[in-house]
Amino acid sequence: MSLVQPRTLPGALELLPREQIAFQRLLDTIRATYERFGFLPVETPVMELAEVLLTKEGGETERQVYFAQSTGDREAGRAPELALRFDLTVPLARYVAQYEHQLAFPFRRYQIQRVYRGERAQRGRFREFYQCDIDIVGKDALPVRYDAELPAVIHHLFTGLGFAGFRIEINNRKLLRGFLAALGIEDGERQKLVLREVDKLDKRGADWLRETLAGQFGVDAPTVDRLLAFVGSRSESYGHAGELLDGLAAAHDHPLLQQGVAELREVLARLADFGVPDSHVRLNFAIARGLDYYTGTVYETVLTDHPEIGSVCSGGRYEDLASHYTKSRLPGVGLSIGATRLFWQLRELGLFRDSESTVQVLIALLDEAQLPEALRLATALREAGINVEAQLEPGKLKNQLKYADRAGIRFVAIPGPDELARGVVAVKDLARQSQFEVAPAELARALEVEIAQARVMPPAGGDAG
Amino acid sequence: MSLVQPRTLPGALELLPREQIAFQRLLDTIRATYERFGFLPVETPVMELAEVLLTKEGGETERQVYFAQSTGDREAGRAPELALRFDLTVPLARYVAQYEHQLAFPFRRYQIQRVYRGERAQRGRFREFYQCDIDIVGKDALPVRYDAELPAVIHHLFTGLGFAGFRIEINNRKLLRGFLAALGIEDGERQKLVLREVDKLDKRGADWLRETLAGQFGVDAPTVDRLLAFVGSRSESYGHAGELLDGLAAAHDHPLLQQGVAELREVLARLADFGVPDSHVRLNFAIARGLDYYTGTVYETVLTDHPEIGSVCSGGRYEDLASHYTKSRLPGVGLSIGATRLFWQLRELGLFRDSESTVQVLIALLDEAQLPEALRLATALREAGINVEAQLEPGKLKNQLKYADRAGIRFVAIPGPDELARGVVAVKDLARQSQFEVAPAELARALEVEIAQARVMPPAGGDAG
Repeated sequence: MSLVQPRTLPGALELLPREQIAFQRLLDTIRATYERFGFLPVETPVMELAEVLLTKEGGETERQVYFAQSTGDREAGRAPELALRFDLTVPLARYVAQYEHQLAFPFRRYQIQRVYRGERAQRGRFREFYQCDIDIVGKDALPVRYDAELPAVIHHLFTGLGFAGFRIEINNRKLLRGFLAALGIEDGERQKLVLREVDKLDKRGADWLRETLAGQFGVDAPTVDRLLAFVGSRSESYGHAGELLDGLAAAHDHPLLQQGVAELREVLARLADFGVPDSHVRLNFAIARGLDYYTGTVYETVLTDHPEIGSVCSGGRYEDLASHYTKSRLPGVGLSIGATRLFWQLRELGLFRDSESTVQVLIALLDEAQLPEALRLATALREAGINVEAQLEPGKLKNQLKYADRAGIRFVAIPGPDELARGVVAVKDLARQSQFEVAPAELARALEVEIAQARVMPPAGGDAG
Repeated sequence: MSLVQPRTLPGALELLPREQIAFQRLLDTIRATYERFGFLPVETPVMELAEVLLTKEGGETERQVYFAQSTGDREAGRAPELALRFDLTVPLARYVAQYEHQLAFPFRRYQIQRVYRGERAQRGRFREFYQCDIDIVGKDALPVRYDAELPAVIHHLFTGLGFAGFRIEINNRKLLRGFLAALGIEDGERQKLVLREVDKLDKRGADWLRETLAGQFGVDAPTVDRLLAFVGSRSESYGHAGELLDGLAAAHDHPLLQQGVAELREVLARLADFGVPDSHVRLNFAIARGLDYYTGTVYETVLTDHPEIGSVCSGGRYEDLASHYTKSRLPGVGLSIGATRLFWQLRELGLFRDSESTVQVLIALLDEAQLPEALRLATALREAGINVEAQLEPGKLKNQLKYADRAGIRFVAIPGPDELARGVVAVKDLARQSQFEVAPAELARALEVEIAQARVMPPAGGDAG
């Protein structure tokens, strides 16, 4: 039989077990944080009816959609009726519209699932990747105060992930559009196009933006300079944002700008109540978010030690979630983390060390005769809630220690013949390179204590994951 | 704008949040159990290269495969190069062959992901469903003792899920085939066909089997009766299996049967060491498992109070996992739980009550003036590891209690104006219909204790999930 070369499609991130454990811990921390803030889990099918999924005008995203079809339908020559989701927002819109009368509003949901995009194969571009989304969706209305809760979620999450340096950057699309209108750029479509270019400022620089706006949109030089001064404005923290907003509100009396200023003020005023430290949030008028559907508050999150990787958590406020599916008005606010890309970037930066194994204790086996006792110990530890791998074949202790070390298993319990003859089991702590002995009946208790201590005091430095 | 009716594809199980929480708890328990026994997580892409995935002769499974293609490739008129996985076994084979030199053997992996089959739409048939698999894969060889570990996993899992009545049924394909050979049915293909029919005994009955074997395979009546007597044999427990095996080994000296008997003896002898109670496992010579690739031990698991739903957890031993991808010999043993179907069946039987919410505490808001204090309390509870939903808009207490009750949130903390004036927060326990008051600074501590107690003593009966 000729062999098929085992390989995955380009653009899929497949991990070895120790990497998978680190990635799973990232997802678990995200999920725990979302649940901590009262968001409820939703999962939707990977495949949706194409007619339902693809309601929007076909843009770049739609061109990247994967269609799916069973063998039978393909052979019958039918057009594919199914498509793989390309984000979690359209499925959320479909879900909320479909179950509208069974859900309580404001509806707070989290969703951690993979999405699919037929991207060109390229390093760091993924065709399959995890998105981790939260949204709060109101019925008819959703007060601005909800926009202040999401920075609290981000703060709790990135603190929990062990990042010392991160900053949430906030802006408001009404303020942005009001400012443009005050500069004379009043047409909605034109504003969108200008904002798309402004959104690239951090990547391409001021000179590029000046040329583009003058060339493509005929904006005169003094106006571009005022725009550049505006989008260059940052507050040091949210506590210092008041002056910036005061100055802006005093200089321009355009109603949309005034509304944007008022919304931002309210969001910033709530942040302290939500427990978000002043230094972790700032105004950044350059944040526009490319997506047209944001209408108010917009957020990005940067790792201050690694600004080069861009925003790691973004989102904002939208006017109406599901107008394609229901006449109900469903305004909301949400954010999304591209976990696969984030993990990949952190790994590239060397910030994810190999994770400790999910296996907490390896029970070594030196001699066939101790197998029954080793298995009884394993059962006792498992009943105490400890993750145990029991060696079922006897081998040299040296090799079993080496295996545990490579696998990231911290504790090795050794019920060797000598130890058992003395009424003890030996335990090696590979992280501390220490060893102790304990009676078999006390092993579970002793390891519970060791594991609890290891959780509070890791042996060497913290992990990003 | 005309509206699109929001709906999912037939054959996908989409859940409301409270159902999703119950389902997620099922998956979490499965995952925790797999980790408890030292299995390591693996995830593979939903899409695989069709050339890699579809190596086997095209049977019913291959006809049900979904192919996938991006818009660009479709427009270019190319044949689809991608297919959605239809099980987790073929991706495991591909994974182990691909990373063979980076994995440690025996390789113990778990995988909890969705698989896709273009089944005909029918009640209880799913086109997308979760499989939860574990496998132990050896290199060159894997001693029979590993086959005794999987019943321990099943036992731990179904006990953890709160099922009082379940039983693991064990058989061995060598024993089965040896018995058939001893009866004169020696050809391998003919054995497979006969075993496929025998596998349907429990569903279709003895008369049907007698007719089928006589009609299709020309097996004479006395031989069918001996076969029926054999496959009708059950031990009451594994402790009582010895006599049955002794009798069988004495009556037939076919080497394959003797080998099967020896393997079963070894598996059964190890079960006590693995902590599996005698009453939870029995021999059942009727278990054949339809899949041809099992070669030794085979398992099924039945819920003794609900035998009508069939096996809820099945698996067995195979000779060689990945012969399509590598020349290395990779024998293994594994099992699989179809979690979506299991959840659906248990829900149909009314065994899943609505789950408690992931939200542990709702902080009620009676008056706008208490919002800052309510948010500070929410932050303190979250920092103590409690899942909190804070009401951000004031409303009547009655409505907020009704909301909590419907959502399955057990505790409602009420920092009302009267309470705060007296220096306390009121806490309602909706499960016990009791109430207490506590100082704001003590709220987190008090709720931690309540939640810990609730975990140990649920208010009314146990949940299956």
